[in-house]
Amino acid sequence: MELDEVVCFSRFSRVAICGGTHGNELSGVYLVREMQKAERKAKERGNDMEVITVLSNPRAVQRGLRYIDTDLNRCFTHAMLSGSNTNDAPYEIIRSRELNALLGPKGSRDAVDLVCDLHNTTANMGLCLISYSDSDWLCLHVFRHLQRQMPDVPTRFIHFNATNKESYSLDSVGKHGFALEAGPQPHGVMRSNIYTTMKMGVEHVLDWVCLFNSGFVFEGGSVDVYTVVRNIDYPRDRDTHNITAAVHPQLQDRDFCLLYPEDPLFLTLSGETLRYKGKEPLYPFFINECAYYEKGIAVSLARKRRVAIPAIRVQTEQEQQAKKDECTSEEEEE
Amino acid sequence: MELDEVVCFSRFSRVAICGGTHGNELSGVYLVREMQKAERKAKERGNDMEVITVLSNPRAVQRGLRYIDTDLNRCFTHAMLSGSNTNDAPYEIIRSRELNALLGPKGSRDAVDLVCDLHNTTANMGLCLISYSDSDWLCLHVFRHLQRQMPDVPTRFIHFNATNKESYSLDSVGKHGFALEAGPQPHGVMRSNIYTTMKMGVEHVLDWVCLFNSGFVFEGGSVDVYTVVRNIDYPRDRDTHNITAAVHPQLQDRDFCLLYPEDPLFLTLSGETLRYKGKEPLYPFFINECAYYEKGIAVSLARKRRVAIPAIRVQTEQEQQAKKDECTSEEEEE
Repeated sequence: MELDEVVCFSRFSRVAICGGTHGNELSGVYLVREMQKAERKAKERGNDMEVITVLSNPRAVQRGLRYIDTDLNRCFTHAMLSGSNTNDAPYEIIRSRELNALLGPKGSRDAVDLVCDLHNTTANMGLCLISYSDSDWLCLHVFRHLQRQMPDVPTRFIHFNATNKESYSLDSVGKHGFALEAGPQPHGVMRSNIYTTMKMGVEHVLDWVCLFNSGFVFEGGSVDVYTVVRNIDYPRDRDTHNITAAVHPQLQDRDFCLLYPEDPLFLTLSGETLRYKGKEPLYPFFINECAYYEKGIAVSLARKRRVAIPAIRVQTEQEQQAKKDECTSEEEEE
Repeated sequence: MELDEVVCFSRFSRVAICGGTHGNELSGVYLVREMQKAERKAKERGNDMEVITVLSNPRAVQRGLRYIDTDLNRCFTHAMLSGSNTNDAPYEIIRSRELNALLGPKGSRDAVDLVCDLHNTTANMGLCLISYSDSDWLCLHVFRHLQRQMPDVPTRFIHFNATNKESYSLDSVGKHGFALEAGPQPHGVMRSNIYTTMKMGVEHVLDWVCLFNSGFVFEGGSVDVYTVVRNIDYPRDRDTHNITAAVHPQLQDRDFCLLYPEDPLFLTLSGETLRYKGKEPLYPFFINECAYYEKGIAVSLARKRRVAIPAIRVQTEQEQQAKKDECTSEEEEE
């Protein structure tokens, strides 16, 4: 990549804003509902861009649960999406295929250009974009835009390195996609400040897309990316699998504050401090996230590094036409 | 009541500490489990006092839910307890009868002397004793003991005025009883600081009972009691019943800070501030409690007043024997 080069991308014709992928994460649920109400009043976004708002898991939303049968946000691998629906299929498997039909098919040219999937966490994580890629320049530019437009909100980019396994989350259905995670907020609760942060975040995402579509050239630069290294589970009883310690009070709520070897990690229920035994200082996040008790994650750890991003702009109509012609001739050759 | 008079009560022979009455309120669940482990190691409490530890709703605990079929902590009216178990009875109805057999029967002389039922809230309420009575001197003395022993923890006494309706919660099964509520903590999450607060609270409750049984005379004085006046629900959509506003950021987390007429109460999802229209300044609590969305409570409001409490002590053996004789002769007369 040459940093003085401007990288061009197709314009965004369809953007999906999804909420309630986890039914008890209420900011996204209510934000999508508000957007749907506003949509009925007026289509306010220009640029011929279609904004699709989706309540991803309506049954779980209705019951105030994360999911009915299985975690919807783990159902979007090609294998799971391509099976046939049987009568006894878990609800979320069926729903993932409906969403793939609506927003995908995943990996196809018909997929929406961007999926922004709204989530909440009980961890003190501020606003995070979570992505499978650390080289999707569009997502990294959106991230930088949010950081600049919302200087009072700690906003970070988390990269789940999925090179060895396929992405499984809803946002992977779009050509580009990320989860927009806001916290701290208890599941099943709406906190006004978290709702407002998420609402502002989504507005800035859509503003960025409009600006991009309008031909604006976004300058190159760099952003900080947190790449997940590993997770640590709670200490547990061997027989019952119950936790035997809670996150240490000195670590609780300190998401993205560097954790050094020998720093307190857990406080056992009987009062003993357990320390971080890793050799490398790492950045903790998803500290004491409610939904991760069942997944065996007390805290995730990441390395931070600076990633250079090129200048980008939308392809001109001429360039798009040229690319289309190229694709057509390639198809003809096949 | 003469304040220079020392009021005498029977000694406590059985005290119940209950956790997991709501299965996703984890401090009590884990504290009871820890106490049960410790019990197996050694019976450490003296005074011939039996401490009964109970996991109230084991099925809900196992599934990480507040309840399976219905809220257990609303099942302890005489009417609900006295019905016969049918095959299709809700799980919690059946369980309430088991608990009544173990700790009650409610209202009988066989009931345990004290039920301390452990709860968590997502509201910023510190530590609260919640009781149906503002004149149970024993409970008010326990409360004052906690306030004195834990000066760093905001500890309050909430009085649900149940003169017109029967008490329905688990703690009403004991001769004396209260809920011990600790927050803020998301349901389904263990926060080490909240666990520690609750653990200290329970230890001080048991210490107080031992001190009482030993013959200590607790001096009279006064305590502040918050008596519930009314609840306010979230603004809701008439058709869907969905909330249309969240608790205002200026009210969120300000439990027990006096709410004045015209203070901000809600912020609608579209950004409008709604104000408190009451005529009397009142103390808000259970602000934005997760479990109360379904009960139609966004915030509870209380009046604070000072309650005088007499000096108390345990009855001497002589006095107890005299009382027993009195009861026996009364029974013989019947």
